[in-house]
Amino acid sequence: MIDLRSDTVTKPNEQMRKAMYEAEVGDDVYGEDPTVNRLEQIAAETLGKEAALFVTSGTQGNQMAGLVHCQPGQEVIMESQAHLFLYEAAALSAFAGVQIKTIDGNRGAMNPNDVEAAIRGDDIHQPETGLICIENTHNKAGGAIVPLENMEQIYQLSRKHQIPVHLDGARLFNASVAAQIPVKEFAKYTDSVQFCLSKGLGAPVGSMIAGSSEFIRKARKWRKRLGGGLRQAGVLAAPGIIALEENVKHLDEDHENAKYLADGLQNMDGIVLVNQVDTNILLIDITETKHSNENFIHLLKEHGVLAGAFGPNVIRFVTNNGITKKDIDVALTAVRKVVS
Amino acid sequence: MIDLRSDTVTKPNEQMRKAMYEAEVGDDVYGEDPTVNRLEQIAAETLGKEAALFVTSGTQGNQMAGLVHCQPGQEVIMESQAHLFLYEAAALSAFAGVQIKTIDGNRGAMNPNDVEAAIRGDDIHQPETGLICIENTHNKAGGAIVPLENMEQIYQLSRKHQIPVHLDGARLFNASVAAQIPVKEFAKYTDSVQFCLSKGLGAPVGSMIAGSSEFIRKARKWRKRLGGGLRQAGVLAAPGIIALEENVKHLDEDHENAKYLADGLQNMDGIVLVNQVDTNILLIDITETKHSNENFIHLLKEHGVLAGAFGPNVIRFVTNNGITKKDIDVALTAVRKVVS
Amino acid sequence: MIDLRSDTVTKPNEQMRKAMYEAEVGDDVYGEDPTVNRLEQIAAETLGKEAALFVTSGTQGNQMAGLVHCQPGQEVIMESQAHLFLYEAAALSAFAGVQIKTIDGNRGAMNPNDVEAAIRGDDIHQPETGLICIENTHNKAGGAIVPLENMEQIYQLSRKHQIPVHLDGARLFNASVAAQIPVKEFAKYTDSVQFCLSKGLGAPVGSMIAGSSEFIRKARKWRKRLGGGLRQAGVLAAPGIIALEENVKHLDEDHENAKYLADGLQNMDGIVLVNQVDTNILLIDITETKHSNENFIHLLKEHGVLAGAFGPNVIRFVTNNGITKKDIDVALTAVRKVVS
Amino acid sequence: MIDLRSDTVTKPNEQMRKAMYEAEVGDDVYGEDPTVNRLEQIAAETLGKEAALFVTSGTQGNQMAGLVHCQPGQEVIMESQAHLFLYEAAALSAFAGVQIKTIDGNRGAMNPNDVEAAIRGDDIHQPETGLICIENTHNKAGGAIVPLENMEQIYQLSRKHQIPVHLDGARLFNASVAAQIPVKEFAKYTDSVQFCLSKGLGAPVGSMIAGSSEFIRKARKWRKRLGGGLRQAGVLAAPGIIALEENVKHLDEDHENAKYLADGLQNMDGIVLVNQVDTNILLIDITETKHSNENFIHLLKEHGVLAGAFGPNVIRFVTNNGITKKDIDVALTAVRKVVS
Repeated sequence: MIDLRSDTVTKPNEQMRKAMYEAEVGDDVYGEDPTVNRLEQIAAETLGKEAALFVTSGTQGNQMAGLVHCQPGQEVIMESQAHLFLYEAAALSAFAGVQIKTIDGNRGAMNPNDVEAAIRGDDIHQPETGLICIENTHNKAGGAIVPLENMEQIYQLSRKHQIPVHLDGARLFNASVAAQIPVKEFAKYTDSVQFCLSKGLGAPVGSMIAGSSEFIRKARKWRKRLGGGLRQAGVLAAPGIIALEENVKHLDEDHENAKYLADGLQNMDGIVLVNQVDTNILLIDITETKHSNENFIHLLKEHGVLAGAFGPNVIRFVTNNGITKKDIDVALTAVRKVVS
Repeated sequence: MIDLRSDTVTKPNEQMRKAMYEAEVGDDVYGEDPTVNRLEQIAAETLGKEAALFVTSGTQGNQMAGLVHCQPGQEVIMESQAHLFLYEAAALSAFAGVQIKTIDGNRGAMNPNDVEAAIRGDDIHQPETGLICIENTHNKAGGAIVPLENMEQIYQLSRKHQIPVHLDGARLFNASVAAQIPVKEFAKYTDSVQFCLSKGLGAPVGSMIAGSSEFIRKARKWRKRLGGGLRQAGVLAAPGIIALEENVKHLDEDHENAKYLADGLQNMDGIVLVNQVDTNILLIDITETKHSNENFIHLLKEHGVLAGAFGPNVIRFVTNNGITKKDIDVALTAVRKVVS
Repeated sequence: MIDLRSDTVTKPNEQMRKAMYEAEVGDDVYGEDPTVNRLEQIAAETLGKEAALFVTSGTQGNQMAGLVHCQPGQEVIMESQAHLFLYEAAALSAFAGVQIKTIDGNRGAMNPNDVEAAIRGDDIHQPETGLICIENTHNKAGGAIVPLENMEQIYQLSRKHQIPVHLDGARLFNASVAAQIPVKEFAKYTDSVQFCLSKGLGAPVGSMIAGSSEFIRKARKWRKRLGGGLRQAGVLAAPGIIALEENVKHLDEDHENAKYLADGLQNMDGIVLVNQVDTNILLIDITETKHSNENFIHLLKEHGVLAGAFGPNVIRFVTNNGITKKDIDVALTAVRKVVS
Repeated sequence: MIDLRSDTVTKPNEQMRKAMYEAEVGDDVYGEDPTVNRLEQIAAETLGKEAALFVTSGTQGNQMAGLVHCQPGQEVIMESQAHLFLYEAAALSAFAGVQIKTIDGNRGAMNPNDVEAAIRGDDIHQPETGLICIENTHNKAGGAIVPLENMEQIYQLSRKHQIPVHLDGARLFNASVAAQIPVKEFAKYTDSVQFCLSKGLGAPVGSMIAGSSEFIRKARKWRKRLGGGLRQAGVLAAPGIIALEENVKHLDEDHENAKYLADGLQNMDGIVLVNQVDTNILLIDITETKHSNENFIHLLKEHGVLAGAFGPNVIRFVTNNGITKKDIDVALTAVRKVVS
């Protein structure tokens, strides 16, 4: 079965399994797991931040940004289709007690003028704006890269208004590889960053957050509250190190495969490409095929290909490290059969 | 000074002051204040609900809707410019732990299709939709009346999805009087309603919430938590009864005055009317006058008229029971002087 | 009916009613109510604090202390029988997200050593101690006065550990009058104070909080979130001023009446006095009378006297400004009849 | 170094590492990880519950109990020295918005009469009692076993009052092995249970919660919000299965070693045993040795033994699967040197 539902389905490779098997471990709640400590140091350096922390998921890392940066009763600005708003089950409001103010973006990028206009004034009726979140690459916008300049502009206005900026970089390395810009450059325009070791980087479990030492110090206690304080976490950090040091090199293959898939689909009857393919995500509109999402996905599966629904009449394909160019050929044949 | 900043500035009249002076009171936390009990009964009957409760403000009443109807981690749907979203300092997220999903409306009315599309599915990543809020009249849309049919349509779909509907009816009586539809008819399409005794109805302090007996029973404890459990509240309930029984009769004068103001302004140089005047609120765009909001308001004040800023280049006038037709003439003269 | 259930049942006197009738008012959300402003200034001066704020209840004032001083996930230290812990419906945990750590006191006073021992260390598993609360007089301890020295000692250790101190002074003026110590002296050992204008001081509605200007600035926004931002609040502030300027002079009568009641009860068959009467509260244990609380209260009522249950086999009497020495004679006769 | 600080320091053994290496995995957020599914089924069966869920820590499992069983503004009853109250950084109040009411127990067991007396009445001032928590074995009471009869009695009264019961069974298997009572028997008197796969059972990471299918369905979404939704979690579930199926057999060795350590210490100069050793935890009071905790621990470390501070003048030793009887002999020698 060719699984194009998400890059979250990637399984640890032999090198990662071996690393887990051999990992030197300790009790990370005591700060004694050498493998975790090494991963956190690598991550901090890679992002150019003072410190980093292993967390169990991207959602956990994003929640911490709200919990550390904000006070209850504040407002957080983010793009209307942000993962944090759509797919984290309203956790930011439930835990950090903040309201989310969304802004419609262009391919995931918010217009800095819109961001500035959304910042609240000093008034008893209004929440203080406590945080600005950016998602890069932007999942719902089809893996779109938020341009570095856009991040820089938002960061500059955030300085003026003294509001922290968090980057949900679940797929930041996809942006970096595709744009040929070091992650450090993106991270420069943020106060905190979260990125995933799973997804395209292929680790079985885990994400990293990075920021100032003070941010990470506070985040560590919130991680404990969230239940993310692990014991011998080195068994997860070991494949995480490989994700960062090895797997990142292969992300461009995922991007090539996604573009190859887009090329193959774009002239197919009834298929409308929704997004410009920047990285590893491809969205197609199937309205003209007359198939429902359920039916389309079901038929694809019968031809050996898994894909996911992504809104009304939209199907998402995500290339990942378990997918070869040959798999894409199979997928194209499968789609052709479904629409014909 | 002619105060058109808001209808919240209305002062209690002689009849209300006398009612306060003479009010029979008791300890309302024990349920022993006869005047409060009478007001709550009148309010429940007027709205056609099982029970009602005196609260100290519209904000407090709206918060209770979230606290009683919702669970933390749920999502509440409302119009993008709703008072609850813009001007309650993110309290709903801070206290009830819910996320707000906004929908752009038309003159304050959400398209029922948009509402239905915004209801979340049964998925681990998604918050359950826990409440739909409607604001009628809609303040930011310039006191626009949300049509009864619109409320009915949203209510019907809410039944299908088993989601409660709350009405922020801070100015519901304005809608009722202007549309010549009893408030009971609007309230029919809701599970809970909040309306203000202050604002156009002229009581010094207070709002009412109404709903099922079970809703009010739970709201009573949340009111205690919010610090809204008062002792001899009859001194506020007494003018509240007059607001409901007497002052409601005079709301149409406010509406006439607002229309008279609009008529006078519409051909004035540089003044663009923003809203169709349904009730007692009038918004004008002053971009063409080249004045900033601050400056425009300052100059008006020099001519004896108070108005408020209401977004970039927009000025709000609100007629109220302290304003006569003659005051409007003065206001028109003042504006004419400012723009000339 | 002689109502000794609580001092919350006190009704506004003629002077207060007249003050309400005549009160000069404005929109207090805009800071324009002159009577409220005057009350807030008087309260601040009386307590020796930079600023004060009118709130609708003692509970609301106490909640604000938690909301302003604390962060979610912190711990608040207070006495085991504090009103904040027992009778505010867990609002502090619900709204401010803090955990309460209780300490058993002696007549409502916590041993400073116990307080210091309860302060949490710098450890990832432990909440930071965010606030220390004192209640004076202490309701559940029978209106006991927490000694000034005790407050001073706790305040001194709080400075060492940089933890704010809040005083729930719902009945602070009773402590002040009985101990002949100005409220300012008690307030000196606090960062914020709440006291009630209702209860013994006889205003129909309201409490005050006081603290630094910065504390009050933040509290003002939290008051808005809690729904305590009123409009023409001068109608409540006017009797509040009388409470502070006039009624405070008569509190000693309540105390004398309570002692007179204690004297009369102490040799009565089956009645055991529970508390030393410092102020206006008297607790009796009725175990030996063989009556249940319900029954005892019911029989008293048949003899024209209202009292309240206050824990297993304990009845509470609270003298207040509606009670005369003659009423106490009637009450003594009533109890005598019930136990004979 | 002989590490007796905690049983959390246990490292995965060869069998566990091999299991991780070979684990069949899938995306557990989609419910497709066969190893996780198998572990959850085993755990549910072992506890006699309808369903179980893998979580990343005991703290996370305990938090879910509050989040699923309770509403904000409710109160949770637990023993004064419960881990949930002392060592989870006030997360239950921060996230679930509940207040904790503590009861002093006897060796960790709450008197059922005290529990019943603490249940709140139906009153507007009082929070509803939303949950009763029991910790078994009780860490702070020195690994004391809460007797099955005690749990049964509390459970019965909980039925009468319709209040759910949660068991923090981080070390439930220690209780089970030492008391020779199947865990299922303890779990019978609960609505939800949490137990750790790490600690004595030796898995590197993870805990399980179990309860009704409905409880687990809701817990799954809260786990997502907390950031505990993992991807290829089978790599952690695989050693978890070994923990449950193999390591549980060796817990009695830890208990024997703890008793052996107690025997050796009990006649040592200046050492006072604090607790009766039921399982794998031993507490000693070192007041008479004149050493501070810091100093005592430091000296022990110089002799190759690690122990932890556990309150003023109390040192905790925890035997675990990395400790042999011979190690205990070394530890005894070390203590002897320190105190001589």
